[in-house]
Amino acid sequence: MTVTGFKFSGISAGIKKNEKKDIALIYSDLPLSAAGVFTSSTVKAAPVVLDVERIKGGIARAIIVNSGNANACTGRKGLKDAKETARRLAEEFGLDEKEVLVSSTGVIGERLPMDKISEAIPRLSAALSENGILDFAEAIMTTDAFPKVHFVRASIEGKEVIVCGVAKGAGMIAPNMATMLAYLMTDASVAPDLLQQILRDLTDTSFNCITVDGDMSTNDTVIALASGASGIRIDGKTPGCEAFISMMKEVMVSLAKMIVKDGEGATKLIEITVKGAKTKEEAKKAGLKIANSPLVKTAFFGEDPNWGRIVAALGASGIQFDDGGFDIYLGDVCLVKNGCFNGKDAERAAAGAMKGDEIRLTLNLNRGDREATLWTCDLTHDYIRINADYRT
Amino acid sequence: MTVTGFKFSGISAGIKKNEKKDIALIYSDLPLSAAGVFTSSTVKAAPVVLDVERIKGGIARAIIVNSGNANACTGRKGLKDAKETARRLAEEFGLDEKEVLVSSTGVIGERLPMDKISEAIPRLSAALSENGILDFAEAIMTTDAFPKVHFVRASIEGKEVIVCGVAKGAGMIAPNMATMLAYLMTDASVAPDLLQQILRDLTDTSFNCITVDGDMSTNDTVIALASGASGIRIDGKTPGCEAFISMMKEVMVSLAKMIVKDGEGATKLIEITVKGAKTKEEAKKAGLKIANSPLVKTAFFGEDPNWGRIVAALGASGIQFDDGGFDIYLGDVCLVKNGCFNGKDAERAAAGAMKGDEIRLTLNLNRGDREATLWTCDLTHDYIRINADYRT
Repeated sequence: MTVTGFKFSGISAGIKKNEKKDIALIYSDLPLSAAGVFTSSTVKAAPVVLDVERIKGGIARAIIVNSGNANACTGRKGLKDAKETARRLAEEFGLDEKEVLVSSTGVIGERLPMDKISEAIPRLSAALSENGILDFAEAIMTTDAFPKVHFVRASIEGKEVIVCGVAKGAGMIAPNMATMLAYLMTDASVAPDLLQQILRDLTDTSFNCITVDGDMSTNDTVIALASGASGIRIDGKTPGCEAFISMMKEVMVSLAKMIVKDGEGATKLIEITVKGAKTKEEAKKAGLKIANSPLVKTAFFGEDPNWGRIVAALGASGIQFDDGGFDIYLGDVCLVKNGCFNGKDAERAAAGAMKGDEIRLTLNLNRGDREATLWTCDLTHDYIRINADYRT
Repeated sequence: MTVTGFKFSGISAGIKKNEKKDIALIYSDLPLSAAGVFTSSTVKAAPVVLDVERIKGGIARAIIVNSGNANACTGRKGLKDAKETARRLAEEFGLDEKEVLVSSTGVIGERLPMDKISEAIPRLSAALSENGILDFAEAIMTTDAFPKVHFVRASIEGKEVIVCGVAKGAGMIAPNMATMLAYLMTDASVAPDLLQQILRDLTDTSFNCITVDGDMSTNDTVIALASGASGIRIDGKTPGCEAFISMMKEVMVSLAKMIVKDGEGATKLIEITVKGAKTKEEAKKAGLKIANSPLVKTAFFGEDPNWGRIVAALGASGIQFDDGGFDIYLGDVCLVKNGCFNGKDAERAAAGAMKGDEIRLTLNLNRGDREATLWTCDLTHDYIRINADYRT
């Protein structure tokens, strides 16, 4: 599939030690509306520092991404390298360098191999294709097990609109290979401010609702680009806008779930829904504490409906309860009702609900009408194996 | 060793499935000054709810502790059971039941076997001995690998004073066996208010500075008891008080480190010191984020001086840096200076510093003069094995 207005490529520049693809490009002949959400870590990688500044202009023409090197903790020299990468790409295409965004993912603390990047740019340009999105997806992978692409097509005001997303995994992937990166592309026409607002809101309920190990990277980046090539203009608070937001949400949640499924060593995707909260923030806080609990995550790996650990995590989240009134469901099985254990039969049934590779855990705090959904994976032997190995 | 004024016992009541010791008693013929610090979880076990109320009186004569059952998430019936346990013990010794404290640790969500507890109380009483502290330490263990006891003896105003502590491990130990419990005993005379203040302050720099897996239990309890049998009275802001605080600190930090060493699957004790912070809270926040990072903990297991992960955790803690100015030391090796990597030689030397079973990690934020020290353990295959097994 293609998104009108966008071309993609992904090739090997020799940044990674093997000969895998490690440099990628999104390019448009049209000026694109651009919006971005970046890591809230106080240690930001050089390309993030650059993009945060450039995205304010609301316009972009290209994003160049390398894997194998994060260009993080590289100081002023690293920032110079990121700018120089953009400048060389701009030169190749005759663009204003301010319209070029840069992302990096990989080892922290090492300088970018600028000669290899320079050498790769003309080849990246030559390889551009409307059908190149899988090459792009592959070239931004670090230890991801599979490329992550999702397309949605829908009709808005009688015309076809496409939203497409591509991402690489988090999990602060194996030895120093940090970062989640995601790029959303659409052929709708969306003003930068509106695009920014939609992206920020949806990031909170998609990429900010997943956790593999509770760690946050120096390079996390989500960028949205709109070409307008479909001729459909999305304005705020119109039915078309609602439809567009739904499409964006579907793509972002799908990519978010793919990232969790591809978590290091993961064997199960766990969807945690916290209902009956006073506020959305409260629901998310409770869900996140459960999603990040190593004890809950190992219990899921062991297919053990260990509700005591879930309750302990809930209590540790600091949420106040109206006198013991929470319910816990595993799949459709009610394990705890109003704070009281439902008995050994329920526990056995819940163990059955944990056998698959996707598990639903639902909590009802019974004190309000807000909710949040989070996604996490189980914690397994392979997580330890992958992360304890020395970086050679 | 003994602490004048205190007697201890620990026996089997049949609460645990095997015939291991599972019920324990601290008893004094003298009225004791009492102080306590309890879990901040909003889901508090019944004995914690009871003790929080009773400790306000500042006086205690006995603490009865059972392992094998946490009496948590048991509702009003559980609270009735905790009170009834205290009442029966008070009856045995002719005490006011308000002078009896109760602790429980073990499986969540099941009622206490009150018949077994009643049957054990006369035997607990008969077994009391000034030398019984190891029996006590053993009977409060859940999956702890070793009993945890520490004595300090010092001279205050020319007389010998003893502070002694006993604890059981955290790690939200294997299947539902949650909780850290610690009891400090001294033969000094300390008013309840002063004892409470000292206990609260020192808990913040000892038990609240350890983390095995970032989980907090429904039953966490630290209680201090002072018999006054030594004849030495400790008043605030005297040299004697400083000496007493040092003794308490030594005992509490030693027990805290024992708990981490005994963390599930742990092979290494990691001491993390964050210096150069603007405030103590800032230092502790940064240290705790590093201490709880699964990626940092697996790197320690793998003896990998993976400073990128440490920097990522530091950034994720939200601490602001004065333009890249932090230093990172592993043992005495400077790995990062002013935010810049010190090179491959330093990395090799740092790998050497990670070989032992105790590792020091020091960070200097270079923006103030406050510091905090935290203790954690590595994250290993055994942690997964222990916690993924089904609870049967």
